[in-house]
Amino acid sequence: MRDVSIVGIGQTDVGEHWETSLRHLAFHAIQAAMEDAGRPVIESMYIGNMLGGQLSRQLHLGPLVADFAGMRGVEAIRVEAADASGAAALRQAYLAVASGTVDTAIAVGVEKFTDVVGSERAAAMASTLDADYEGAHGATPVTIAALLMQRYMHEYGVDLANFAGFSVNAHANGALNPHAMYRNRLKAEGFVAAPVVAPPISLFDAAPEGDGAAAVIVTTTDLAADLVPTPVRIAASAAATDALSIHDRAKTLHLQAASISAQKALDQANVSVEDIDLFELHDAFTILAALSLEAAGFASPGEGTNLAVDNAIRREGRLPVSTFGGLKARGHAGGATGLYQIVEVALQLRGKAGDNQIADARLGMAQNLGGLGGTAIAHILEVTH
Amino acid sequence: MRDVSIVGIGQTDVGEHWETSLRHLAFHAIQAAMEDAGRPVIESMYIGNMLGGQLSRQLHLGPLVADFAGMRGVEAIRVEAADASGAAALRQAYLAVASGTVDTAIAVGVEKFTDVVGSERAAAMASTLDADYEGAHGATPVTIAALLMQRYMHEYGVDLANFAGFSVNAHANGALNPHAMYRNRLKAEGFVAAPVVAPPISLFDAAPEGDGAAAVIVTTTDLAADLVPTPVRIAASAAATDALSIHDRAKTLHLQAASISAQKALDQANVSVEDIDLFELHDAFTILAALSLEAAGFASPGEGTNLAVDNAIRREGRLPVSTFGGLKARGHAGGATGLYQIVEVALQLRGKAGDNQIADARLGMAQNLGGLGGTAIAHILEVTH
Repeated sequence: MRDVSIVGIGQTDVGEHWETSLRHLAFHAIQAAMEDAGRPVIESMYIGNMLGGQLSRQLHLGPLVADFAGMRGVEAIRVEAADASGAAALRQAYLAVASGTVDTAIAVGVEKFTDVVGSERAAAMASTLDADYEGAHGATPVTIAALLMQRYMHEYGVDLANFAGFSVNAHANGALNPHAMYRNRLKAEGFVAAPVVAPPISLFDAAPEGDGAAAVIVTTTDLAADLVPTPVRIAASAAATDALSIHDRAKTLHLQAASISAQKALDQANVSVEDIDLFELHDAFTILAALSLEAAGFASPGEGTNLAVDNAIRREGRLPVSTFGGLKARGHAGGATGLYQIVEVALQLRGKAGDNQIADARLGMAQNLGGLGGTAIAHILEVTH
Repeated sequence: MRDVSIVGIGQTDVGEHWETSLRHLAFHAIQAAMEDAGRPVIESMYIGNMLGGQLSRQLHLGPLVADFAGMRGVEAIRVEAADASGAAALRQAYLAVASGTVDTAIAVGVEKFTDVVGSERAAAMASTLDADYEGAHGATPVTIAALLMQRYMHEYGVDLANFAGFSVNAHANGALNPHAMYRNRLKAEGFVAAPVVAPPISLFDAAPEGDGAAAVIVTTTDLAADLVPTPVRIAASAAATDALSIHDRAKTLHLQAASISAQKALDQANVSVEDIDLFELHDAFTILAALSLEAAGFASPGEGTNLAVDNAIRREGRLPVSTFGGLKARGHAGGATGLYQIVEVALQLRGKAGDNQIADARLGMAQNLGGLGGTAIAHILEVTH
């Protein structure tokens, strides 16, 4: 198995891009990544996308995006794992290079929400749940996350205010990120008083859906050294699944797939959680931030919110998370989110994170969840310079 | 890169399974493949599916199918490349094993058409075309295929009757296959007189959409020898893309992706077209059968229909195709079709094809197309016993 490194990253702003189509969003991210990598020859492309079929009536993104990006002919395949599609695309690109089949591959995540608004979009989002046992009964991801959060608060005696730090931190970091969807700061008092979407989840708790695209180019670590000044090595890549519905899980408040994928990644990288300098987690809702910290081993069960309360998750804290705003403030770009996470960890490790830079970043983890954790994909990145 | 072999295959009947859901279809194929392989431990699953989001309101098939099949926890990802999704799933499973990341993986193709009928289904099928430049104007795969066929007949002076042999052969073979959707035989006179769908494509030319699922288990060639009596080696796996729309292509009548992927596969297997004992091609329409034969190098441009006219494609002919009925008679199970092709080649190479058996099958090729050839994925399988 060959060692793999990242040599190019690109991203568009996350937001409401009414006048930019799905293919154009992907194109902009690909061009930025190609520019960043010095325009290497790409042999295969993996495209992470969640809702193109339902919102844009566009499947078969492989040939569409490859051709539009000027790469007609290359192998190009879409992968879909709900909102973990972005990390899934990176994992396939990683496997393609690791296997020796190709030397250089690109993972592209793209989501275009604004082709549709209103209930049709909510119905599309619900198709990431179990259609027969959840979607058909009116459940959506936010309503299921609300049940999870209620249970957490009940089980562990945790107050709503304890979750505020996740959103406050995300917005503080998003305010410095020129690509972020929301650049306003948020106060803890605002969090607990925000208009409720599905109790106890409020507007300031749920991440906003935003159009966007991000791209990452990978090649062998041997080749990477000649291409760019600071290759970012993929020290680990791991994926796992859980029951799709939370009502089917052995322990409702344990994200089993997140736990398995994080542990596998730590084992593969031969490091422990103490070695991780930053963690881009999947804060689609603050409850998922808390549960992700617990599943990955950064906190014990019921103590995930402590890291927010203690300010450990801030840029200057013990374990910075959502350093560019996370899903909450940078915006949740669906099937692109997992690659935004990777782009952001890579920027931190390169020391090119600008105002969002954290100190001494050498080893970073990103974990992308699909839905309420039915899928979890973890990557650990490192620089050795 | 590790050598990879097939150790388990499974399929459901193709047809209108009104009372069988998407997950149940997948389950049945997986169970059959597991039984066939002696129930090895599966480490990762790739699911090829095209229209689950639009027809069944079900995305995120990875955790849903893995859990329902009793494999909760394993890595499980959906791949989508229109109706080439099945072969794309096999290719990802192949890469996962080849890379050394996992020892054993399963590729599952599943499509459930009968959750929706009528124009909504036609609209969903159109999302495999270019939504902005084709779908929005009312084009569907069959109308684009009709333009392609008209152009072929005009350019090469070929009569409609010359295409009849593809459907006649498919139905002759489908009549012997207990899993086939259509088991009636067809006469050449019937082909030219059939009700027209989009001129010159008739009911007896276009493959029927059928619910179905197929699964293939792969492991390293080293491990395979201990698991099953007749492992089928994947001698080659290759994928390529073309412009999604035929109006964008350099040569309208040349399936460039099919040509590239076939040539790459032949090179990887280190064989030539003369060595191929059977070819499971993507006969969604007879024009695609003719163009596939030309693209892969079995016929010169404009001479693809000659193999049908000369009966070379029959089971006892020089190059048997659609040996279990092909898309036309076995049925076109969307994102499962590419894995039906692989199952069928494997059965031939094992010498277990029953009434459909061809003589001396040692090297078989399968090529799965997405849409009108925007994606093409070729596999070459061999037995060495």
